Amino acid sequence: MFLFMNSPVGIDPIAPRQERLRALLERRRWSFLLVSNPTNVFYLTGFRGSAGVAVIGLREGLLWVDPRYTLQAREEARGVEVLEERGGLLKAAVAWLKKKRAQRVAFEDTHLTCAEYPNLKQGLPGRGRLISAGTLIEDLRYVKDEVEVQCIREACRLTAKVFKEVLRQTRPGVRESDLAAEIEYRMRRKGAEGRAFETIVASGPRSAFPHARPSAKLLRKNELVIFDLGARLSGYVADMTRTVYLGSPPRRIRGLYDAVRRSQLRAVESLRAHALAGDVDAAARGELARRGLARYFTHSTGHGVGLDIHERPRLGRGERSSLKPGCVVTAEPGIYIEGLGGIRIEDTVLVGAGGPEILTLVSKDAWFTD
Amino acid sequence: MFLFMNSPVGIDPIAPRQERLRALLERRRWSFLLVSNPTNVFYLTGFRGSAGVAVIGLREGLLWVDPRYTLQAREEARGVEVLEERGGLLKAAVAWLKKKRAQRVAFEDTHLTCAEYPNLKQGLPGRGRLISAGTLIEDLRYVKDEVEVQCIREACRLTAKVFKEVLRQTRPGVRESDLAAEIEYRMRRKGAEGRAFETIVASGPRSAFPHARPSAKLLRKNELVIFDLGARLSGYVADMTRTVYLGSPPRRIRGLYDAVRRSQLRAVESLRAHALAGDVDAAARGELARRGLARYFTHSTGHGVGLDIHERPRLGRGERSSLKPGCVVTAEPGIYIEGLGGIRIEDTVLVGAGGPEILTLVSKDAWFTD
Repeated sequence: MFLFMNSPVGIDPIAPRQERLRALLERRRWSFLLVSNPTNVFYLTGFRGSAGVAVIGLREGLLWVDPRYTLQAREEARGVEVLEERGGLLKAAVAWLKKKRAQRVAFEDTHLTCAEYPNLKQGLPGRGRLISAGTLIEDLRYVKDEVEVQCIREACRLTAKVFKEVLRQTRPGVRESDLAAEIEYRMRRKGAEGRAFETIVASGPRSAFPHARPSAKLLRKNELVIFDLGARLSGYVADMTRTVYLGSPPRRIRGLYDAVRRSQLRAVESLRAHALAGDVDAAARGELARRGLARYFTHSTGHGVGLDIHERPRLGRGERSSLKPGCVVTAEPGIYIEGLGGIRIEDTVLVGAGGPEILTLVSKDAWFTD
Repeated sequence: MFLFMNSPVGIDPIAPRQERLRALLERRRWSFLLVSNPTNVFYLTGFRGSAGVAVIGLREGLLWVDPRYTLQAREEARGVEVLEERGGLLKAAVAWLKKKRAQRVAFEDTHLTCAEYPNLKQGLPGRGRLISAGTLIEDLRYVKDEVEVQCIREACRLTAKVFKEVLRQTRPGVRESDLAAEIEYRMRRKGAEGRAFETIVASGPRSAFPHARPSAKLLRKNELVIFDLGARLSGYVADMTRTVYLGSPPRRIRGLYDAVRRSQLRAVESLRAHALAGDVDAAARGELARRGLARYFTHSTGHGVGLDIHERPRLGRGERSSLKPGCVVTAEPGIYIEGLGGIRIEDTVLVGAGGPEILTLVSKDAWFTD
């Protein structure tokens, strides 16, 4: 159930993560980091409950959980002492820090809400003690370690397999929501913990909604259908999109599909170490612009994936993040034309030392039915 | 796809919700409420995208969305002008408020993060302009309107039906995760948008983890199995738990089950208008305490359900919230004994004017197989 057990490479990634974090704490002269985002708690300790507050110091590691999670935390967490708390977890952590007379405590300001902040502020009186951690842990998560890459790879493999199976059931008369149900069921049966996000199956004019919810609408002949799906496995997610046409596509649709496909290929090819995120976006966008389609491409080209479905970097206009070997991102240009429909093609891609590697291996050729 | 269309009672609840909100704004002399929590945006406007920022004034109603959601927002949202924004949504809303020279702007401090706050603070210079909205919208959501009750009722009916079907497949040799997959598949096939939370199927000693994830473990004869499941329908959720025993339960297990069942019954019976949340908890806890089992009951007795799986009120120790007709809450005492396993029984219950009404109608008698 937890990462270490699931780890196909048989190594425990938690200790090295805590080590890397401690090196950062030391460099910044922070005494403690207070971790309240459950995803980051999982990343740093291995505990996968929905509530838990961790404190990592240069020597200390503690994790407060409520009684629902005590047994689970003791089973899953490494490198931290598990403490059961019946009152507020944040308050308990702050009380501990106060007792320690902690100086320079960093906290997750991108997760902690304005309403929670006073608990922290009043619990740790004095000046200069609270420091915004910014995206410190997200920076660590930016480059995936070996275990993470393996988990994402497996999630992608499973997702691709499910898509290929469900594609065979995709025909006029089938309900969008039934295909989505079928996709998610097959993910579970193949060992996924579930879907990484609400599966999209959107047909006909509905495919022009980039984030359409599957509806009771029946698929019809001569319609575009967008599938956007991803499984979650060992906590890690996959993300892929394919667009198909039920019938023989008219010339205009063929042209549009071809344009998106070329744009997506350009994006994938640009996913190399040291490339800037904004340049990947520009490559995909430029390909569509050359055919006068840029105005229909209404979102960014991609995003990192990992424990969250949307992680850094964002592959958007002008983004200055530099890609590194071990980054895992999506490449997903799309065009959406009101009344006509939408076309999007997306892969999850590993930025390898030797170049990009597509992890969601499903053909983009077999996109129409006759 | 949106509430109004799904509404089985055929009325649009959005206008009355905005009216109630405006009455509160007026009473508190707030000029505007800035809504950033997507669930609250949905509640107040009908727009169900994952990102959107709304501003509700005494006369004004605006909703900023990014281009992914423009078409969807125009289709779904009522009572607000939809504005497409390619930059930050929060920044756009704040710029609009600044241009309006808005005074006394309330914001959702329980949702806005510390990192987002400066955008607000610096965007609206001057003193006394920013007010914490606290749980204002959650207070509105505390009592469900007719459409909401109908949605929750349908979600509960669907969930109960699925559970009864899957119970017939529950036998030794079946995998926990396969049962969970089956549950979620049947939810989708019956029209649910998906599960309201990660379905729990936990057997044997694993049932002692109140929030166990379904694993690859096979069910075995003479084991307890806890099912905790709920569908999401039209945005609204159901929540129910049943515990079964695969075989003929030994006397100790029978006694424990009986105790939890009585405790749950006491909780349900206490769910009456004007009862205090803490008293419901005390009723359930007292029943277990009389048998010396209180120490195994490690969580609170229940929680509100609605658009979120955990809403106010919390039915916990000493909680002072007073129940009202139209509240929908869970009653779910449970005991967890390391090594032996867990027993939890949970219903979603409507606090009606005439008394409590269980919405998750599944027998608690047929809990063992022979």
